[in-house]
Amino acid sequence: MIRYSFATGNTNPETFPADAFGEAAARVLPTMAADLNQYPGKLGHEGLRRLMAEREFEREGVRIDPDHIVLTNGSMQAVTLAAETAAQGNNLVVMEEYSYVGSIRAFDAMGIEMVGVPLDEEGMRMDALADTLERLKQEGRPTPFIYTLATYQNPTGAVMSRERRLKLIELARQFDCIVVEDNCYGDVHFDGDKPPALYALDDDPRHIYLSSLSKIFAPGVRLGYLTASPALLERVLARRHDAGPNTLAAAITYEYLHDKLWQHVEMANDALKAKRDTMLDALNRHLGNECSFSHPSGGLFIWVRLPDDVDPGRVQEIAAENEVSIAHGSDFHIRNDAGPFIRLAFGYPTIDEIEAGIARLGDSVRQARGSGAS
Amino acid sequence: MIRYSFATGNTNPETFPADAFGEAAARVLPTMAADLNQYPGKLGHEGLRRLMAEREFEREGVRIDPDHIVLTNGSMQAVTLAAETAAQGNNLVVMEEYSYVGSIRAFDAMGIEMVGVPLDEEGMRMDALADTLERLKQEGRPTPFIYTLATYQNPTGAVMSRERRLKLIELARQFDCIVVEDNCYGDVHFDGDKPPALYALDDDPRHIYLSSLSKIFAPGVRLGYLTASPALLERVLARRHDAGPNTLAAAITYEYLHDKLWQHVEMANDALKAKRDTMLDALNRHLGNECSFSHPSGGLFIWVRLPDDVDPGRVQEIAAENEVSIAHGSDFHIRNDAGPFIRLAFGYPTIDEIEAGIARLGDSVRQARGSGAS
Repeated sequence: MIRYSFATGNTNPETFPADAFGEAAARVLPTMAADLNQYPGKLGHEGLRRLMAEREFEREGVRIDPDHIVLTNGSMQAVTLAAETAAQGNNLVVMEEYSYVGSIRAFDAMGIEMVGVPLDEEGMRMDALADTLERLKQEGRPTPFIYTLATYQNPTGAVMSRERRLKLIELARQFDCIVVEDNCYGDVHFDGDKPPALYALDDDPRHIYLSSLSKIFAPGVRLGYLTASPALLERVLARRHDAGPNTLAAAITYEYLHDKLWQHVEMANDALKAKRDTMLDALNRHLGNECSFSHPSGGLFIWVRLPDDVDPGRVQEIAAENEVSIAHGSDFHIRNDAGPFIRLAFGYPTIDEIEAGIARLGDSVRQARGSGAS
Repeated sequence: MIRYSFATGNTNPETFPADAFGEAAARVLPTMAADLNQYPGKLGHEGLRRLMAEREFEREGVRIDPDHIVLTNGSMQAVTLAAETAAQGNNLVVMEEYSYVGSIRAFDAMGIEMVGVPLDEEGMRMDALADTLERLKQEGRPTPFIYTLATYQNPTGAVMSRERRLKLIELARQFDCIVVEDNCYGDVHFDGDKPPALYALDDDPRHIYLSSLSKIFAPGVRLGYLTASPALLERVLARRHDAGPNTLAAAITYEYLHDKLWQHVEMANDALKAKRDTMLDALNRHLGNECSFSHPSGGLFIWVRLPDDVDPGRVQEIAAENEVSIAHGSDFHIRNDAGPFIRLAFGYPTIDEIEAGIARLGDSVRQARGSGAS
């Protein structure tokens, strides 16, 4: 049995306003008979689109017409719609070599070949990106699109520097690529500065930007969104065949969040920051001699580099015997390459579970070290 | 402006339990913090899957394992997942030549060639289906799947007879086709008997069945579902990349419906039957001399055959000037062929609106007749 769950990027149930959310539902649903008995249309709930436009303006200083925002069934629907549109039948994407497992699985199932670019603490390496784009061009396979999690990259936690963002934009222009920017974690921000989103640094109409309420509110509401310039957005919408996003979920979420979005985000981030600090502190105490790890200024994950003589799969097995679940780094690699990495998620477990679970993880790593590779 | 809206298949807001639905939300959401902060998984809310299995058992007498039911983002997600799976890269479907516009648009955008089979009041014609399957086989293009709305077919309202259902099953076996059965309207039943669903007459594992809560509850909850034999279901699930169905919508809907599904359906159907009767009566009075029309025993639509000298597009224009919206029959034809048909939806408008609107439609048809084709 798993008692200490650090494997999946679930959010913090402790800061979820379950009672108040229920009250918001009770307030708005009696007014919704007509709306719920119609089909939602391709864009979805107007109020929530307006609120997400305000969110982008607040964070990035860019005014987006709410009619250029499309609500989606979580950001994963946005990822697949964006990828289908951007690939243009040329099934190839250049992306961080470690990335979101949902996107990797979807691209794989969609037959989109993934070409990886290494990354460091400043995100995707631009020298490697330039080489990759040039190589693919030379091979007669020009890159239709670049997919990037530039901010609080999953799984590494890296934030792409402003300088690299500008370089990425320049390279995308030079090699005529669409940029698909996945900013799901952008508002899960604890400390320090962060650079603007790529779309806020660029007026190139070949840019698809997507974000979500999964990380700042709850994944169970399945509300993501996507924006692009009108011509590109038309092409995205032509691929939407689900009769539109969820009116019920959007209406309740809007009713709850519309006058307290940032208040909610701040409260949720304060609690997540305490969990991050607890996990970093526990990692220092229990694994500080054996491992190095990221110190993310946002997001939900710590990326841990194990000692070279320890097999991550073996650590995962022993940790599970010790009731701790962790994610194997290879899960996030586009070719499932095994590196010396594991990923720890700190959003869902309690502070006490983080304390106790990381102590057990420390024991598990030392056990794995003693036992040799499996 | 449109005051009399008969164009789209929206459901009846008058029987939607908006207050009680809000109360159900207020009851269940305070218990949902943990569930909403996790990803839903590919199948979705277990209670609602169990309830839908009970629904199928009640209607068809077939026990479906709830773990073989996949909740989808409305039935349209089920249609596209089923079609992608069943086409097997051989992008061809045989279907009723008039069909659901959402499916037609999706198949078209997905590059699936649609081959139409004519239908009459007993549904798809089996002589024509046999000829079509044989012809395609001769052409070296065997049919990967048949898509059918066998019960309360949209737009015609036809119910496929039991005899034809058995014949369809036999032909599917003979020509090795998957059958995708779209039973969205199956519980919107007013009078008379109806034959079992195709899947209840057949234990062929190459059958994908889909249904929905859109027509018996509300389209704005975006809840459909799909079932198939385990091996085929695995192939469907491999194509799902949206991180799962909506936990929030499923939980509230389950909380409301779990102990009163059939009570709700009966109440909703009684009200819809009154609307159907009103529309049929009004059509008899205002267009009985000019038109013939279906007398559907379920579903949301009346299919009207205009006089041969009247152009449906012209009727649509004049009706709009008279504040009445109707759907042009060609919208539902797989090749947009113009026939002498219009479709009237009776779920959303009030009884008074149906009365007044059909009177205006009668005037519009006579005006169109006088003015000649546009």
